Amino acid sequence: MLSAEIIAIGSELLTPEKTDTNSLWLTEKLNEIGIEVKLKTIVGDDELRLEETIRDAVERSDVIITTGGLGPTEDDITRQISAKAIGRKLIFHEALVEDLRERFRRWGREMPEINKRQAYVIEGAEILPNPNGSAVGMLARIEAKVLVVLPGPPRELKPMFETGVLPELKKLAGEIFVKRKILRVSGMGESAVDEAIAPIYKSFEHVQTSILFNRTEIEIHLRAQSGSESEAENTLEELAGLIGKKLGEAVFTTNGELMEEVVGSLLAENGKTLSVAESCTGGLIGERLTDVSGSSKYFIQGVIAYANEAKIATLNVSPSIIETRGAVSAETAEAMAKGMRELAQTDYAISVTGIAGPSGGSEEKPIGTVFIGYADETRVKSVKILLPGDRYLIRWRASQAALDYLRRQILKNFQG
Amino acid sequence: MLSAEIIAIGSELLTPEKTDTNSLWLTEKLNEIGIEVKLKTIVGDDELRLEETIRDAVERSDVIITTGGLGPTEDDITRQISAKAIGRKLIFHEALVEDLRERFRRWGREMPEINKRQAYVIEGAEILPNPNGSAVGMLARIEAKVLVVLPGPPRELKPMFETGVLPELKKLAGEIFVKRKILRVSGMGESAVDEAIAPIYKSFEHVQTSILFNRTEIEIHLRAQSGSESEAENTLEELAGLIGKKLGEAVFTTNGELMEEVVGSLLAENGKTLSVAESCTGGLIGERLTDVSGSSKYFIQGVIAYANEAKIATLNVSPSIIETRGAVSAETAEAMAKGMRELAQTDYAISVTGIAGPSGGSEEKPIGTVFIGYADETRVKSVKILLPGDRYLIRWRASQAALDYLRRQILKNFQG
Repeated sequence: MLSAEIIAIGSELLTPEKTDTNSLWLTEKLNEIGIEVKLKTIVGDDELRLEETIRDAVERSDVIITTGGLGPTEDDITRQISAKAIGRKLIFHEALVEDLRERFRRWGREMPEINKRQAYVIEGAEILPNPNGSAVGMLARIEAKVLVVLPGPPRELKPMFETGVLPELKKLAGEIFVKRKILRVSGMGESAVDEAIAPIYKSFEHVQTSILFNRTEIEIHLRAQSGSESEAENTLEELAGLIGKKLGEAVFTTNGELMEEVVGSLLAENGKTLSVAESCTGGLIGERLTDVSGSSKYFIQGVIAYANEAKIATLNVSPSIIETRGAVSAETAEAMAKGMRELAQTDYAISVTGIAGPSGGSEEKPIGTVFIGYADETRVKSVKILLPGDRYLIRWRASQAALDYLRRQILKNFQG
Repeated sequence: MLSAEIIAIGSELLTPEKTDTNSLWLTEKLNEIGIEVKLKTIVGDDELRLEETIRDAVERSDVIITTGGLGPTEDDITRQISAKAIGRKLIFHEALVEDLRERFRRWGREMPEINKRQAYVIEGAEILPNPNGSAVGMLARIEAKVLVVLPGPPRELKPMFETGVLPELKKLAGEIFVKRKILRVSGMGESAVDEAIAPIYKSFEHVQTSILFNRTEIEIHLRAQSGSESEAENTLEELAGLIGKKLGEAVFTTNGELMEEVVGSLLAENGKTLSVAESCTGGLIGERLTDVSGSSKYFIQGVIAYANEAKIATLNVSPSIIETRGAVSAETAEAMAKGMRELAQTDYAISVTGIAGPSGGSEEKPIGTVFIGYADETRVKSVKILLPGDRYLIRWRASQAALDYLRRQILKNFQG
């Protein structure tokens, strides 16, 4: 398996606010063709450190990718330093300057002289065109190794990598195909999942299985490697199918979809409409559902009934229920769902009322107590859950639990 | 100024899903005491690469911090490799084993023999206790330099760094204080901001000013360095004050607060209540407002009027307005705000209707067209904006613009 290193260049990446995200995308692309990332470095506009970093990387790894530092200003040092690190000269390409001048002309501007710097290319390197920016990339071969120099902005880097670099690296890596699949699970704990599926995945020697706890969900990551693309895919399909069968409807996707996408597809496929009444989630469920493009087909309306008066006036919750049972209760959740459905005249309505904290908890109803309500044409029901975490996590988990509750009801309605 | 390098250790940090977040926190802490991070490395459980990385770091930087790789298993190699990289032995500390045994006993378990590995410490290094986990940290002095070895989990790393490392590094760095301040600006472009304030910040030699474009907002980052803490703070206050005066109400915070916090404080201070009618933002404004703890004091209700029927039935928007002007129009936005305010009986209501894409645009109303409505006791008004970006960005920017519109109205109402 070939090894790779990624070097992100730019002093702004060494501040507390900025993190290098290009390397995550590049890692995924490299892994897919069977190249393993062994080291990542983030270095500022520091000539000595950058030179040493590139030289070390070229010595110990097969593929070296740098990102950033190709702008036209003085502190963009990647061009000179990468050439220096591998002992080559920079060659001036008149054609690149002409091309840049022409681009600036089209934008109605004259090319600043400073941009001439971007016409220097490492001796013997292939030029990688940049349709989305002024900095070309470079691909230099050093015996069997490859040094790839890419611009920092993702919208310049990504197409350049896919068009100019990936095909070359594929040849270098040989016919190794690595395929990934992400299953997401709702309503089960990490160890319960592992206990249930370990006997299955352990019999698949060529698939690497890891169970990750990701914010609110259990994710099952499968990674298969093979000399044949279809074999890798088929193996994954088979394993994912067996896991899906074992865990049943707790698996809400085998394709890495989000819960709001899964629920949206179920509604769209069955021609059903939805409305949502939210208290402690404050609009989060509506926001997640409408983040999916095309959601106007099934999502009709939401009410954020934060104050009790809003629950009473808009959702027709009886004041006596709130008085006797409390705003956070099964009865209120059910009344909210019922009232929401009637107001919006939808096929389904769900509701959430709970205590997200940091204050407002009691012995009887501690922080994290959440009731989820559901209403359809014939039934109104609810469920109580107790969620761990801070305000942010409780709200997110409540939104996820509500969407999952709806998902399971729809599955029941349509699959018996 | 002292230079630092951070080395994050662990193969999981080289996967496409994981990113190293400890280093952002550490960078902030180091910057605050005047130590500059010059390089960050992420390396897997790879002995040769890790050894080389630590050795290079110790050669070129003053402070070297490693995170992770201190667990009890075979692939936790930081202990041995960091000792090897600086040419020292590992010393077994019986007292650490006793301490671990005692902890396991308290958890009602017997210490696995494998945990004995965690009792090895670099020769001559100071032991950093870990109240939240089983791996102690280490602080080794190498002449004037310092190598700090920390565990990976943030809840173990952070207290250990603050208690055991920060005071030592402060001594090393001397009396340099670096203070930061973030101003956020809404409703102005990057270059307009720079043009307006460059003459001001350029006269402050000891403050580093950078103008960043962060998703939807312009942020002005100020960083002052001084031998006196109060001097650094006063300089920042003075500069922030001058910038605030120059840019006026476009600056919505000089303390790094979020827009929803600023709006919430304004409402709470003035004893006013708010309701929100959302179409294209789908609950995002409600979600942002209620993400602030204590928001139930002023946030009463929201309506996500996604479908036209919801606008008509719940918000009392006249069908003829929607028919003649369209759902995305000034008239609809104003009717939504007016209807929302009447329904929720709040002091203020705001509304948003627009086209977030990717479909639904027309020549007359392209994707990104958004109308924001506002209603109070005496006035109903609206503003039209055209937002760039994809669906996610348009929705986020629309929510920001709506909150900002409300903020400016409240300021006008209460400050003349």
